[in-house]
Order: sequence, then structure tokens, then C-alpha cells
Amino acid sequence: MTHGVKVTFVDPDSSRELAHRIVARGTMVLDAALEAGIDVTATCGRRGRCRSCRVRAVSGEIAPPTLQDTIQLGPDGVRERYRLSCQMPVVADCTVAAMPVRNELGHQIMADAGVFSPGAMPLDCGVEKRVIRAEAPQDENHQTSDIEQVLACLPAGTSRDVPFSVYRKLPAVLREELGRLTVTTFQDRIIDIEAGETSEHMYGLALDIGTTTVVGSLHKLRTGEQLASQGAVNTQAVFGGDLMSRIAYAQFDVKKLQVLRVRILNQVNEFIGAMTQQAQVAPEHLYKIVVTGNTCMHHLFLGIDTSYVGLAPYAPVVRDPLVIPAGEIPLKKAPNARVCLLPILAGFVGADTIAGIIATRIYESESIRLLVDIGTNGEVVLGSRDRLLVCSAPAGPTFEGGQVRHGMRGAVGAIERVSIDEDIACEVIGDAPAIGICGSGLIDAVAKMRDAGILDAAGRLWRPGVRPLAEALRSRIVQDGESRAFVLVRSAQGGRGEDVLLTQNDIRQLQLAKAAIYGGVMMLQRIMDVTDDRIEEVMLSGGFGNYVSIESAVRIGLLPPVPVARVSYVGNTALLGAQLALMSETERARAFDIARNIEHVALATRPEFQDIFVDACRLGVL
Amino acid sequence: MTHGVKVTFVDPDSSRELAHRIVARGTMVLDAALEAGIDVTATCGRRGRCRSCRVRAVSGEIAPPTLQDTIQLGPDGVRERYRLSCQMPVVADCTVAAMPVRNELGHQIMADAGVFSPGAMPLDCGVEKRVIRAEAPQDENHQTSDIEQVLACLPAGTSRDVPFSVYRKLPAVLREELGRLTVTTFQDRIIDIEAGETSEHMYGLALDIGTTTVVGSLHKLRTGEQLASQGAVNTQAVFGGDLMSRIAYAQFDVKKLQVLRVRILNQVNEFIGAMTQQAQVAPEHLYKIVVTGNTCMHHLFLGIDTSYVGLAPYAPVVRDPLVIPAGEIPLKKAPNARVCLLPILAGFVGADTIAGIIATRIYESESIRLLVDIGTNGEVVLGSRDRLLVCSAPAGPTFEGGQVRHGMRGAVGAIERVSIDEDIACEVIGDAPAIGICGSGLIDAVAKMRDAGILDAAGRLWRPGVRPLAEALRSRIVQDGESRAFVLVRSAQGGRGEDVLLTQNDIRQLQLAKAAIYGGVMMLQRIMDVTDDRIEEVMLSGGFGNYVSIESAVRIGLLPPVPVARVSYVGNTALLGAQLALMSETERARAFDIARNIEHVALATRPEFQDIFVDACRLGVL
Repeated sequence: MTHGVKVTFVDPDSSRELAHRIVARGTMVLDAALEAGIDVTATCGRRGRCRSCRVRAVSGEIAPPTLQDTIQLGPDGVRERYRLSCQMPVVADCTVAAMPVRNELGHQIMADAGVFSPGAMPLDCGVEKRVIRAEAPQDENHQTSDIEQVLACLPAGTSRDVPFSVYRKLPAVLREELGRLTVTTFQDRIIDIEAGETSEHMYGLALDIGTTTVVGSLHKLRTGEQLASQGAVNTQAVFGGDLMSRIAYAQFDVKKLQVLRVRILNQVNEFIGAMTQQAQVAPEHLYKIVVTGNTCMHHLFLGIDTSYVGLAPYAPVVRDPLVIPAGEIPLKKAPNARVCLLPILAGFVGADTIAGIIATRIYESESIRLLVDIGTNGEVVLGSRDRLLVCSAPAGPTFEGGQVRHGMRGAVGAIERVSIDEDIACEVIGDAPAIGICGSGLIDAVAKMRDAGILDAAGRLWRPGVRPLAEALRSRIVQDGESRAFVLVRSAQGGRGEDVLLTQNDIRQLQLAKAAIYGGVMMLQRIMDVTDDRIEEVMLSGGFGNYVSIESAVRIGLLPPVPVARVSYVGNTALLGAQLALMSETERARAFDIARNIEHVALATRPEFQDIFVDACRLGVL
Repeated sequence: MTHGVKVTFVDPDSSRELAHRIVARGTMVLDAALEAGIDVTATCGRRGRCRSCRVRAVSGEIAPPTLQDTIQLGPDGVRERYRLSCQMPVVADCTVAAMPVRNELGHQIMADAGVFSPGAMPLDCGVEKRVIRAEAPQDENHQTSDIEQVLACLPAGTSRDVPFSVYRKLPAVLREELGRLTVTTFQDRIIDIEAGETSEHMYGLALDIGTTTVVGSLHKLRTGEQLASQGAVNTQAVFGGDLMSRIAYAQFDVKKLQVLRVRILNQVNEFIGAMTQQAQVAPEHLYKIVVTGNTCMHHLFLGIDTSYVGLAPYAPVVRDPLVIPAGEIPLKKAPNARVCLLPILAGFVGADTIAGIIATRIYESESIRLLVDIGTNGEVVLGSRDRLLVCSAPAGPTFEGGQVRHGMRGAVGAIERVSIDEDIACEVIGDAPAIGICGSGLIDAVAKMRDAGILDAAGRLWRPGVRPLAEALRSRIVQDGESRAFVLVRSAQGGRGEDVLLTQNDIRQLQLAKAAIYGGVMMLQRIMDVTDDRIEEVMLSGGFGNYVSIESAVRIGLLPPVPVARVSYVGNTALLGAQLALMSETERARAFDIARNIEHVALATRPEFQDIFVDACRLGVL
């Protein structure tokens, strides 16, 4: 009989015990941590392709390093008993220091859409509050019922299909203030009844459930005024940073699907709780919640199997816009709300893209515009009111720090800007010592290295004899196993600490990632026969777009070679679109119209995409 | 500080401990029993008006008897430490023997409607199963979704509003048997999807939730064939035998409403479990459940406040026919079923009466017919296809043994038939020693006593000097406190045991109860101007009607004085009507039609009803 072994988790700074857990020998430390209630980020989905889940063994016997450990953490790292917890089986009682999970404060999240101006559109949110005076039944001979008395005071089109919760409270409410009561309807169906006059209190939420972050805002439905907002890292991230990792985690496994679902439901419920508290709004007065997000997040939120969303032809289970009582989902923190999910177009063109189209109004543009959302699964929309094309561009986790040696998200300690003169200078988030590089830093570094001649158009690191290079820069090019790397920041403590490197492989990863996006743009341009000069505006959206240097993005050829003045950052268009659909049923209906009419281009099925992709790998047109 | 006191409950026969409970001093023993999980029947709703909740203190100090104890249990009873547990506060640690609750075996329940013949009506249950061959999405360029592929194989009218549960299982089901699947719809809405062909398996339930008993049957929806049935005492009975007791129990008290609701939900779930097991049917294959019952039971089943159903003008909260997914109610034992509640007419003319009208087809009769459901709240329907009148007749608990000294329900030990010659002879249910008298026995006893001259038309017991009476009978008339009584059965053990008495007050109670019913009949006859001879048929329905002697019922004037040949027992018409609505949407729609068009007569509001009621108290027309 095998006995369990004890794994103790301690804080890396204070060495204070965080938790411990008895597990079966052979359990991965990452699983032990999750079982013990400690969130350890596993960006690459436990494939040993990133360093996000690393831990350090403080005491006790541990397994020898795997090949992945050595690749990701380096010979020094594994000697210092660092390991990837996703690759590290427990072999005996041990104590490990878990890296703190990136929390909301450390991580840059844009909770505000930033551009929302309710004046620009009709306020027809679909929710109505009517104050009526209904008499309780009085006459035994003329039989009626409580609900019939209420319906008699409402417009004729009001549905007789009344929710349970209303029947349950109706007898008391009808008799409380002599029949004076407020009836709330959504789309002509009663959703709540309250004693007295409460018509001022009518609120709604917009919510964008992204793979990386979840953001939301609370609004007054009468005016559109934003009363609160909230943003945080998606708590599912511990099961994988990108979509495919999460699909893989739950594939053909209902229990794991439930794990993901419960995570996001808890998080959204906490969000609602926080926002209603912030805005001093009673949860009962939330009536409409518009949710957007990519197809996978949409399905996971509803507990719908995503197994086949991850397999060609990547079909969603449902694409129609759904309207669901919050209690059925269940969102317990908004008992009376109707949850409206924006429609989906395809497995990798989700409700967030549709929301972005609504928000940017590209569908009514006279000239050709381009909308690009850079992310692990980027989306590209090209067109005008005459025709709209969309494709998804699987960039992978590189922009979020995945599959990059010292990659990390945009948190404290991440290099985010680089300037190169005689030597290199790095700007670090939070003015902290550099511990890694985030996606925007990566783009900036590569652009500047390209300008400085450290990289050629094919992405190769400088070699002696090609062209001259300043000594300070030359000395930063070092051997890294069988390949080479560029030292962005030298460790302060000399040999013991870690240099922050950009390896030749990291640069390749960036080229592949940016080629996925730009290849998508080129493909749509080709199908629509649009040359670069005909693109009137390039709109960058999404959380990532806010931090990227537009010059650098154009420089490395992540975006088409248009004058920088034509490129702008348009904010979190997914949340913005959700806000528009929250405030206007016209806009919500438009989302469905757009989803039905936009043309979807499946890049992988196009033979010509191979060549386009290879071209798109080049670092800039110069 | 007050300490709790310990109440121990033991079995009256074996003295084995059943449970114990620490309660605050002053807690009623009945409440202590319920808290300890022991069901003690309280037929009169803890008003001290019946003996059903009696217990015997085996040891420990007890409070002195109340007036109600003495009235209900007699001086001997209280001396032997019998008490009404609803009137008995705990004053110190004590042990009490609890009377066994009447269980399903002891109690006569008619689970079968008995008359159902599916051939007589259209089989249009509204549930359809279609075997289709749907292809999973194949083409990445032509984006679609799983559900769209399914909908494409269904008739154009099929709703796109698909339940959650279907989305959740759809991806797997669609790919399991190469797209061959069975889609179940109800009223053109998808309710389930299964892999492969399951079209043979299509079942439904009819359920009558009565105040006293709950009965149900399981049917094959393709043919109407009954595969299982079930009947039991409504487990809410421990909180009161009649409707008003239960309304009073939960009035303005949400927690107590929940107690009643949970009782009936648990019972119905157990019913479904038992019937599906009996019929070897998978619970997932139950698609339609038709529920009928009086207004109070209907509301309690749905958790709707019944506070005002008990107050004039006795208005229901909702009367419309409702269709609710079983999961919302929740009936967990029938995950895919749609629960159809038949419509209500008034607070005391519920869905059960509407079902009875459907079942007896009185609405299409050319001649005048009368339908009488005898119960604590009787209902009377009079009319033909030209006009239908209905009233409710509040008979009270007398027919179920309430407010009668030795009254009991029709269980083992109850006198159910009486014959009188020189002396009296009683038939007892289960051929057991008589311990009480049930409603049908009461009617028979009074009819025979009236025939024998022991009672006059006004209901007075024989007094010397009026007319001769056999000695054996004369000797049975005894003094009972300040009043008199008739000894139906003399105790075998002499003075120590209990005689079964019929007191003068018991006879008065029966007169009041039967006058409520017959007064209702007379009132409707007067409004419709129908003389006795124009009534073509008198139909007795309900569980009670099965056991009553029709001759005796006519003799005492519970029914109008028509030839006995014109009176018949028509079965449990509530369940029968539910079965018809289960098998036919036409019949279910008819229920709503009838509810909208029948005329309701509120007896209490009619000034002339006072005189009618006094006339109706007479024991027969002779």
C-alpha cells in the first residue's frame, strides 16, 4: 500500500507556510498546489513551454530536472532547485516556494472601454419600469387572480408568461402599499414587481469575458451613466493562458469543464457583488446583463462542451444571441437580471469580435477600414458598409509572454519599452528591477533591434562580418546552448541572478505570432482586392493594443505599412460593444444582423495562405 | 438562563425509543415531535378540535390537561395521561408514546382513476420524437453551429429557443452515432436530444395533488397505456388535515410555506421515482407531467404564497394554465419533463374541479347533470352544454373524521358500514376491532339511525316518550357530559377501554357538513331554475365518493332526492381529467376554455343561502 506524501507550500519571500496537502506519490506539484487552494499560473497549459508555473524546492527530496526544466529555467535554475511545477512529480515529503500568482494589482488591466458616449445612440435598453395602481381582487363572485389584476394595468402586449419568482412575491407586494407598485419588464415580459415606486432604480451590466482578463462596467439604464467598473485576470488562467490550453484541459472531460465553469461563474458573481457595492446599487435592481467574449469563454460561461470548438472545423455549439434569466446560469448576485449573450460567428470569431464591429461602426464606414485585435487569438476585420470580411489569426501566447524564455504578462518587473543608442536602455513596468519582458516590450525590442541592425529582416541575430555594431551591443550577443541570445538586462547580482535574455528562438516565436496577424490582414486585403493605400484607418483594439508602440508594430510588420497617423488605438471594443448593446436593443439586434452577414475567411483552408504567411514573417518592409 | 428539556418519543406498542429532542420549556409536544422527525397527524390544524395528534405520557412530569384535552379524550383518557400533543407544553424531561401516523397501507387510497379509455379521444399529447440524421459541421469556411445543423433537419416551425441542457450535451450527442439522433419536442420546442433512435420511449405522468391524498399514474404517450400508478396520504397532513388548517399554518410565514412546499415536492419526487421504477422507464424519458389539484395545493406545489387564498374574496395568485420545465419547480426525478398545471377558476374551485369537468364531459351533455365532489372542500357543478355553474361547498373535516369524537379516516379499525335491526351491527375496515368511525361509516350510521327512529329529521337523538325503540338500541343512548351519545361499539375490555360513540355533537357536525354540500346543490338548482326531476344524472367523484353508500347519502339528504339509479360513482375525476390532458393537448386547451366560461357562484355572498342552508340541514326529505 502506498502512503501519501506531504507537500508544503511557502511564500517565496517570507517563507511563511501558505498551505500543505497530502497527495499520492507521483502527483504533479501544480496539481497539488491547486488541490491545496493555491493558484499557480500555467500559461502554456502545462506543456513545459513557459516558465510561469515555476516553483523552488526549499527542502526535501525532488525529482531530477526534465529536459523542459533545463530549457526553460537554465542549468543554473535547475541547480538552484527551480522546477516547472507542471513537470515535477512529488517523490517525497517536500517544501516548495510557489511564485505568487499575478494578481489584479500587478497586472495592467483596462476595465474601462474608454470611448463610450451614450449621447451618440438611442437609449432603448428594452427594460421598462412602470408605476401602476393595481387593486387586489375584491369580489368573490367575479373571480380573478392577483396577476390578472396587475396585467390589466399594463399595455396589452405584455406577456402572460410571468416568472415564478414574481408569482411567489406577488400576493404580499400587491397588498403592501394599497396596490401601488412598480412593474419591471424586459422585452414585454414581466421580470419583477415591487411595492411602491422604484422606477429610478434601473441598472445593467456590460461584461467582457476574455481569455486573459475579465472586465465589466455597471450603468444606469436610464442615462447610460457608468457607475462602477471592475477588471481582473480570468481566474481560469491557472489552467492555461491561451484558449487552446483551456479547451485541451476540459476536452472530453465533463468534470474539468465544470471546474472551468465554476471558476468563471464565481468570478463574475464576485464582480457583480463588487460593482453593486461600489455603485451602491441593490442587486435586485440589475435587470440586464450583456455578456461578450470569444466562443470558448461564451461556452464555458454557460457550461457548454468546448471539445469540438478546438477541433477543425472549430464549430460553435450555438451562435444565436441568447437571453437567459440570471438564475438559470446561475448568477446569484443579480436575481432579476436577464443575461443577453451577444451572437457568435465562428469558433474563433466570437461575440467579442461582433461587439468590436458594433463599437467601431466599421459596418457603416464609407471607406475601407481595418480592425485588428492582437491577442493569443487575434481577429482581423476588413471592410466598409459594402462588404465586411473577418478572419481569426492564431498568434499563440507569444504576445502574452508565453513560449518566450523570459516572457511574462504586462506586470510589475516586465520590460515594456526599449531604446537603443550606443547601448540598450529598458523601461520596466513599476520601475522595478527587470524580471522579464512582456508582449509590447518584445515588439518594441525587436523593432529597435531591427533599426539598430542587431536583427535583419529575416529575424537573424547579428553575426560578425555582416556589418559594424557598437561594442556594447555586440557584447550582449551571447551563446545560449546551441543557439544565441541577446542580453536585454544584465543581472545586478552577477552570475547568481538571472539575465533577461531574448533568444533567437524568442525572436522566431514573435515572427510567427505577428505573421499570423499580418498574414490574416494580407489575406483579407487580397480577397477584397484592397491595396495598403486604400486602408483609411487601422484600428487597434483589445487590452494589448493599449500598450503596444504603434510605430514599432508597423516597423516589424505586425500591421500593414501605412502612415502611423492612420493607426489608432480604439480601446476595449468588446466591452464597448457590450455597453452599446446594454443601452440599446437596436444595437443588440444589429449584432445579430452583422453576425449573419459578415463573411468569414478560414485562413487554414486557403492554399495561398502558406506563401502569404512566409512573406508576413519578415520584420518590416524595409 | 433556561436550559432545554428532553422529550423522548417511544413506540406505543414496543416502547422502543423512536427519537428524542432537547427543546425549550414550553414547546408544544407536537412541535418537538416534528423537530425530532416524527410525523404526528394533526387533522384539525392544532386547534384542539380532534384527537388525531394524541400522545400518552409514559414517564416524567406533564402539564395538567386543558379543556380541549378533557373534551376530546374524556376524563378517563386524561387520567391515563393521554394528551393532545398540539395543546401540551413540555414542562420537564419526559417520555411520550406517539400514536403511529396513518400510513399508506392502512389508508384506503384510490390511485386509479378507473374509467380512463384512451380510445375515446384524440392522442395529441404535444410531445413528438423525431429520428433525424444531422451532420456535424464540416466546412470551416461555411460557418454554422451544432444546433443549426439539428434545426435544419426539423420542421420550419421549430423554435430556436433551446434549453440549456440540450446545448450542454449536444456536441457529444451529435457525433456519437454519426449524427443519427432523436429529437424530442413539446409544442414545437426542443426539450431533449439523444444519440441514436429512442422514439419508442415517450412517457408522461398525470398527478392529482389532493389535500388528503396524492395520486398519480404513468402512461405511454404513444398509446395512453397506463404502466404504473401510485397513491399516498399527502405528507403535508401532519400540519393540518384540511385546506384551511394548512393555509393557516403557512399564513404570512415564508418559512412555513417552504416547509409545506418541500414536503409535497419530496413526495412527488418519490412518486416519480417509484413509478418509473415500477414501469421500468428511464426518468429522462418522462416528457410531460400534468398536475391538477385544488388552488391551495397548486400554489403550495409551486411555492406561491397562499395567505390570501384563505381570506375573502379567496383570490388565487394565478389562474392561467402554466407550463414549467421540471427543473425549475424542481422535480429532479424528471429532468426533461414539462410540467403542465391545469387552470384554476377560483380560490376554492381549483384545477381539480376543472379536470373533473373535462373527465365527465358534463360540458357537452344535452341534459342537466350534477357533479359532486364530497370532501373537506366539496365542489358542485350543475349544468349542460348550454350553461355550467359551479360552487365550492366548505364541508369541513367531518367527512374525513375531523371534529367527530371517534372520527378517523378510512383506515383499518374504522367503522364503514352499519346495519340496524333489533340491535346495531358494524362493518369495520380490515375486520379489525373498531377504534373509530370514518366519513362513509358516519353517513351510513346516521341514515340507518334515522330509518330506525333513533334520530329525527332535525337530527335529535331519541328521547323516551316520543316513540317506541328496541331495548338494545335504547340502552345504547348514554349521557355524555351535558349532552348525549349513541354507543356504536362497546369496548371489549369493559370499562377500561373505549366505547366508540356517536355524540349528539357529532351528528350536528355531520348535518352542517352535508348541508354545505347539499345547500350548494340547492343554490345552483335555484339559480338555474332546475327541479330535482330534471337532473338526469348525479355523478359522485373523488376518493370519498367511492366508499359512501349512495342510498344512505340520498337518505340523509347529502344528495338531492332523486332515484338512486340516477346516482353513480364516476371515480377520481381529477386524476382522470389530468390523464386526458396528458394524452391530448385538445383536452388541455379545453380546460382553459372551460375555466374561462363557467359561472362561479360564491355561496357566502348570496343572502338567500342562509335559508337554503337551514333547510339543507334536515336529515332527508321524508
